[in-house]
Amino acid sequence: MVNVSIIGFGNVAQHLASAFSSSPEIQLVQVFSRTKMQPLLPIKAKIIDDFGLLEKADLYIIAVPDDAVAAVSAKLPFGGRLVAHTAGSLSMELLEGNNRRGVFYPLQTLSKEKSIDFSGIPLCLEAESYSDYTILERVAKAISGKVYPINSIQRRALHVSAVFVSNFANHLYQLGEDICRQHQVPFDILKPLISETAEKIRLLSPAQAQTGPAIRRDIHTIHMHEDFLSDSNQKNIYQLLTESIQNERKKL
Amino acid sequence: MVNVSIIGFGNVAQHLASAFSSSPEIQLVQVFSRTKMQPLLPIKAKIIDDFGLLEKADLYIIAVPDDAVAAVSAKLPFGGRLVAHTAGSLSMELLEGNNRRGVFYPLQTLSKEKSIDFSGIPLCLEAESYSDYTILERVAKAISGKVYPINSIQRRALHVSAVFVSNFANHLYQLGEDICRQHQVPFDILKPLISETAEKIRLLSPAQAQTGPAIRRDIHTIHMHEDFLSDSNQKNIYQLLTESIQNERKKL
Repeated sequence: MVNVSIIGFGNVAQHLASAFSSSPEIQLVQVFSRTKMQPLLPIKAKIIDDFGLLEKADLYIIAVPDDAVAAVSAKLPFGGRLVAHTAGSLSMELLEGNNRRGVFYPLQTLSKEKSIDFSGIPLCLEAESYSDYTILERVAKAISGKVYPINSIQRRALHVSAVFVSNFANHLYQLGEDICRQHQVPFDILKPLISETAEKIRLLSPAQAQTGPAIRRDIHTIHMHEDFLSDSNQKNIYQLLTESIQNERKKL
Repeated sequence: MVNVSIIGFGNVAQHLASAFSSSPEIQLVQVFSRTKMQPLLPIKAKIIDDFGLLEKADLYIIAVPDDAVAAVSAKLPFGGRLVAHTAGSLSMELLEGNNRRGVFYPLQTLSKEKSIDFSGIPLCLEAESYSDYTILERVAKAISGKVYPINSIQRRALHVSAVFVSNFANHLYQLGEDICRQHQVPFDILKPLISETAEKIRLLSPAQAQTGPAIRRDIHTIHMHEDFLSDSNQKNIYQLLTESIQNERKKL
């Protein structure tokens, strides 16, 4: 049994607290919430709103907005204990040095409105010592089958990549929806294509899976699409991504 | 029972022929293949290589490369019959006018390496008359649960949108993989995020589902990401899509 406390009450904090609550290998000791709001997910732990009440635990996970992580870690009223943050874009060294530092980064897009099976979520871990890494690893393996040692530079690369494959991909869905709406076409028609495009790369690399007018260098269709797009932002994105697909092909 | 023949032997032609072969409501009469190659998918029909051998059918589906559709439709040695193409980017009027014209457009990314369940693939139909539309509809409903009447302009909008949500989204996956490779991080870590991002829009609109530093206007993280990207193409795409997300938000 590993004793874990969570500091924070947002998306990531609540999803982690809920996953820990249903693991027999984890004792969730306390959850710190500034506001003492009711949790939206089922959490079996005492909720506190005062750092002075934090009891002893094997691991404290700080899951607060990125710009608050350093300040929160400096407020902890103890030293020598293992403290990890959950942020993809922050280095481990940002945590106050009077405690042992670590990172426990779940790479997934979490919304409170949508419950999620943690067992498939990759957890990227970093620690200052091997023995601390094994503590993080025990906790991670209690809730997920996908656990990876990832250093701070690799984590930053993952975070940037995640922006491309998730935030930017979702924005392309939005542009697709905009184009459909402009022409009274139901966006639902595109949803199976969106799923299949994402599923395809489980079997094929993205380079192998690439289809469409850009990779075929089908100039006729590309020009027709450019003429069709009246919105200059849509057209700029069309042109830049078409060029990028064609240049990527040259590199292969 | 509707009698259908297919002209063509590529991806779309073989997937359609295979789906028709297993439908009790369709009699697949003939498949025309210039090369008489062995099909990669199970097809129950006579394969011919001479337009002169084409027998009478209720519907002829031309599934050949876009730039060959007009020429193939002009070579058909009969008139007054229903002939449809399968191309998202071509108008119905491109087909030779001596036959009755239609469109039978499956909106999906089809690879011969990956078999597919046609029942979930949207089929976008267009015809010159209501009676021809009902023939296309009977054939479409025999293999798919998602059948839509879509005119030529709407189909073009769908085709452009499909480039954004599929070809371009897949290219973003490729850029994500490139960034991972540059930093020795396994791309597999990102695959659950890619799936979840695509699945999310079944429940939320893309605008509601948008997360990340751009929509949060987290300038600090955005600058850090820009500094991290050494490739100018990656950086240009990062900046253009970040701006586009922020402008889209203003419009809401």
